[in-house]
Amino acid sequence: MNAVEIIKLKRNNTLLGKNQIDFFIKGYLSGAVTDYQMSAFLMAVYFNGMNDEETFHLTEVMLNSGLRVELDYLNIPKVDKHSTGGVGDKTSLIIAPLVASCDIAVPMISGRGLGHTGGTLDKLESIPAFNVHYSIQDFKRIIAETNVVMIGQTAELAPADKRIYALRDVTATVESIPLITSSIMSKKLAEGADAFVFDVKIGNGANLPDHDKSLELAKKLISVSKQFGKKAIAILTDMEQPLGRNIGNWLEVEECIELMCGGIVPDLYKLNNVLAGAMIYLGGKASSIDEGEIIAKDKLMNRDAYNKFLEMVQIQNGDVEYVKDWANLKRDRFKKEVTANEDGFVSALTAVDFGFAAIELGCGRKKVDDKIDYLAGIILKKKIGDEVKKGDTVCELYAHNEHKLNAGEKRLIGAVKISKNKPSQKNIILDILY
Amino acid sequence: MNAVEIIKLKRNNTLLGKNQIDFFIKGYLSGAVTDYQMSAFLMAVYFNGMNDEETFHLTEVMLNSGLRVELDYLNIPKVDKHSTGGVGDKTSLIIAPLVASCDIAVPMISGRGLGHTGGTLDKLESIPAFNVHYSIQDFKRIIAETNVVMIGQTAELAPADKRIYALRDVTATVESIPLITSSIMSKKLAEGADAFVFDVKIGNGANLPDHDKSLELAKKLISVSKQFGKKAIAILTDMEQPLGRNIGNWLEVEECIELMCGGIVPDLYKLNNVLAGAMIYLGGKASSIDEGEIIAKDKLMNRDAYNKFLEMVQIQNGDVEYVKDWANLKRDRFKKEVTANEDGFVSALTAVDFGFAAIELGCGRKKVDDKIDYLAGIILKKKIGDEVKKGDTVCELYAHNEHKLNAGEKRLIGAVKISKNKPSQKNIILDILY
Repeated sequence: MNAVEIIKLKRNNTLLGKNQIDFFIKGYLSGAVTDYQMSAFLMAVYFNGMNDEETFHLTEVMLNSGLRVELDYLNIPKVDKHSTGGVGDKTSLIIAPLVASCDIAVPMISGRGLGHTGGTLDKLESIPAFNVHYSIQDFKRIIAETNVVMIGQTAELAPADKRIYALRDVTATVESIPLITSSIMSKKLAEGADAFVFDVKIGNGANLPDHDKSLELAKKLISVSKQFGKKAIAILTDMEQPLGRNIGNWLEVEECIELMCGGIVPDLYKLNNVLAGAMIYLGGKASSIDEGEIIAKDKLMNRDAYNKFLEMVQIQNGDVEYVKDWANLKRDRFKKEVTANEDGFVSALTAVDFGFAAIELGCGRKKVDDKIDYLAGIILKKKIGDEVKKGDTVCELYAHNEHKLNAGEKRLIGAVKISKNKPSQKNIILDILY
Repeated sequence: MNAVEIIKLKRNNTLLGKNQIDFFIKGYLSGAVTDYQMSAFLMAVYFNGMNDEETFHLTEVMLNSGLRVELDYLNIPKVDKHSTGGVGDKTSLIIAPLVASCDIAVPMISGRGLGHTGGTLDKLESIPAFNVHYSIQDFKRIIAETNVVMIGQTAELAPADKRIYALRDVTATVESIPLITSSIMSKKLAEGADAFVFDVKIGNGANLPDHDKSLELAKKLISVSKQFGKKAIAILTDMEQPLGRNIGNWLEVEECIELMCGGIVPDLYKLNNVLAGAMIYLGGKASSIDEGEIIAKDKLMNRDAYNKFLEMVQIQNGDVEYVKDWANLKRDRFKKEVTANEDGFVSALTAVDFGFAAIELGCGRKKVDDKIDYLAGIILKKKIGDEVKKGDTVCELYAHNEHKLNAGEKRLIGAVKISKNKPSQKNIILDILY
């Protein structure tokens, strides 16, 4: 067995066995398989794919490249959620404390903004002093105290994924279902949860916009979860327009707090409660997703989710007073409005453009070491289907200088569409797979 | 423009322009594009191919990575031949001096054995003291004196090919038509010839066994030649059984000398004369390939080819007396015969198996630094279609120790097939493309 033979097998669309996948990935970690061989292999996988068994073996060897957190000592169900990423996609911030308030542990390891999509860690860090860097030992201590912890990836968990992901990023091999699946699952399985809910985004604002590919990813995530003996539900959700009304780090945290304090933003509210409901169901605290959804609504209304959120901010060293002061709006100094240029109905708010516009405004990084402006962002005053008169504000842009404000505005040209007729309303929840 | 974008374009099957191909290949040579990006790109090319224009641009940038030999001072036509490689494929040794004896210059840069196929350089070096390492200056001096020179690849010609080929070899990206084409053509164009004849092998003993892929390669070679303003003919030839009767370095030289001294081995004689005829035609010394073939036969019969061969051996420092002594057979000490196990007709002599068996006997390298045994090899006493009685010798194996002899014999198990009925005779020339 050698590296070239294994690349050639995959290139020729032959199924690889566990031994071959192990040999290749372990060889890569030890240095026996080079970067250039790995990238040729990844490109062959891009073209020929991997079946469920191959994806399982790939995930397993990546998972076993690092630690697996053991959470059995908690004696309560452990459920996590993962989103494939979108624009204005802030549900983790609500869901994690909400589900934790139902006597379910939520061990959540999140990422940073990537491409046009935001990242949970960046949003959390918009809360002054909030710490996302904890050791595995602290991770286990915190979750035992509050049922919830939200941290960033650590070097101990699935280090193979970290190396392979970095290589995929510079070799145009990111958009591959089995590679995405093994990357997500090797990290998620390392966290120690028993069950997973996957929010798989579909539409222009998703990392994988194509419906069929997203469906395939959803099925693969469920298949691999089950092969590891984990329960899983995948929910396909719409990402044609940004989720909710706010885009940008603190602006999104603010919108989450508003929701946890009784406010209702229809699409965000619905999606949040279905995702949380699925987690509550998998955690055994409801007999169906629907029942879980009702419990989730209660936890928002009775402020249990909000109180758990404050508890989490407190234990992770965040500035609780800053959070409580949310209604005293924090905004960047420079503001611009995008207005409707005719009467009619909003028919498109192209999510990917809003994502890139937010980066221009300062919400994300163009280079690895760019500094994020936590108060920059976009607030949608209208959503798809809303009626507008010419001159009405469709959205507000915020940035800390005019240059960024103009760059953000420019990036939005063509992103807002107005039609004479009211467009048909799309559900935020497109499909639920078990 | 950056490397990842270009990989992604090719991955998505978008045609690349000249600027993009230039950027990528020049970037690779300068270090701006890494090995792992090149290997991902090569694998994307393996899957999505390149059209004739892309292949032309790739060839051009690889050609321009080094020197182009200027041979205009010769004032006679300059024609070269290239074979895609086979087993017992020794025609270069006859053709080069034959065509040179027709007042056509033959500037030939050849390679070493690769995989199961032999290499012209290794064959030439079986002539004691024969030198294949000359500078470009000496290359130009020798061809001016004798109309022919046969050397190995030098660092000045198409260095991009050398680096890319080495990478393809370890990343399972060798078998790609546009990559094979650009590799062959960048080196051939650097030699300074005006016209090319390509011997494209088809069958189990070829590097690209598949008929359709070989046809595609033949068309691509002609297309790229024409885009560079060169005349070209591609001849598709059978490589189901070894060519001629001898396999192994000196054994093949001996067979060539025999042919140049009036001996006739039907398939070798036919192929040699058609290839040489096509070169003579392209060199303007015959009005058709058929007329060229007749001239080639004359040049064998009147010993002009042989005398030019001796002149070439002399000028390239080879031992002329050793060559002239060819009829005094030189063989390895250990010999074994493979015999027919039943009465009938030979129906298969699987070329690829004979190629690998020859390597086991000592004719080629398994590792880069293996030493070649020039007297090792195989002599076919029967060819496909010949009648045999049980016990008749089908072939003789030669090696310098019993271990190698046995390994060679073992590698031939199943390679010889006998049938009750006489198999239909296959032409050595399958097709001729202009």
